[in-house]
Amino acid sequence: MECINCQVPNPDDLVYETKHWKVVLAPDQSYLGRCYVALKRHCGDLAEMEKEEWLDFAELVKKLEGAMKKSFDATMFNWTCLLNDAYQNNPPNPHVHWHFRPRYSHKVEFAGLLFEDKDFGHHYGRGMAREIPKDIKEGIIGRIRENL
Amino acid sequence: MECINCQVPNPDDLVYETKHWKVVLAPDQSYLGRCYVALKRHCGDLAEMEKEEWLDFAELVKKLEGAMKKSFDATMFNWTCLLNDAYQNNPPNPHVHWHFRPRYSHKVEFAGLLFEDKDFGHHYGRGMAREIPKDIKEGIIGRIRENL
Repeated sequence: MECINCQVPNPDDLVYETKHWKVVLAPDQSYLGRCYVALKRHCGDLAEMEKEEWLDFAELVKKLEGAMKKSFDATMFNWTCLLNDAYQNNPPNPHVHWHFRPRYSHKVEFAGLLFEDKDFGHHYGRGMAREIPKDIKEGIIGRIRENL
Repeated sequence: MECINCQVPNPDDLVYETKHWKVVLAPDQSYLGRCYVALKRHCGDLAEMEKEEWLDFAELVKKLEGAMKKSFDATMFNWTCLLNDAYQNNPPNPHVHWHFRPRYSHKVEFAGLLFEDKDFGHHYGRGMAREIPKDIKEGIIGRIRENL
């Protein structure tokens, strides 16, 4: 079964990469700057990650959070490694990736669009899907890259 | 403001500790074996964690997941670092901790109680709170400890 996390991301969506990780902007920008952070190697469980991959991740966390603060004045961040969807298939074929959601205590305007984190201080909302125009998505990625 | 993650946990709830982390059984056992994993040091952001703390965490992930597989035949695991609640206060006083939820593709019976992961393959459910009798909680912790 094809693994979507092994695919080379669309260069337009790629925010950043390190030796072991790739950062892709999520189509849903309900939380401005939301990204997926996927291990480049096909590995299905955090327990199977190498030390070097963990330390590379630690550096990436620092860099990405810093860039979101500089770019959009993000307040804090939610990191989750779930892997649930992979277990809807038999056999499951999980691939380690993180959901990274910057969270905001205040409204943010970017390129004429207003972003508001209505659940700030609480669990992230689900079932939202705010897709945004291609040029603004490029603007978001460009802004993050400037601050990485 | 007092930090609950800095408090010494009730010894009855402590599952395990390493040099940098403590593992406490969550009161809600909707997902059998659910734990909180808190950094011993008061540190408010993953970006401020030391390399040694990350590597200690990596070892702990391996150990804890292994113990949950041996103890309860857990299928896979959800790890989240959110810290949202701390931002309901002004100023916020976050303290890095992880929510660890073992997930199950099958029903599990433990000490006469039935545990069923009805959302398996999907995002963890919220708003559930399955508190269990003290003796069974001790039994769960005992079983995990045997397998660590």
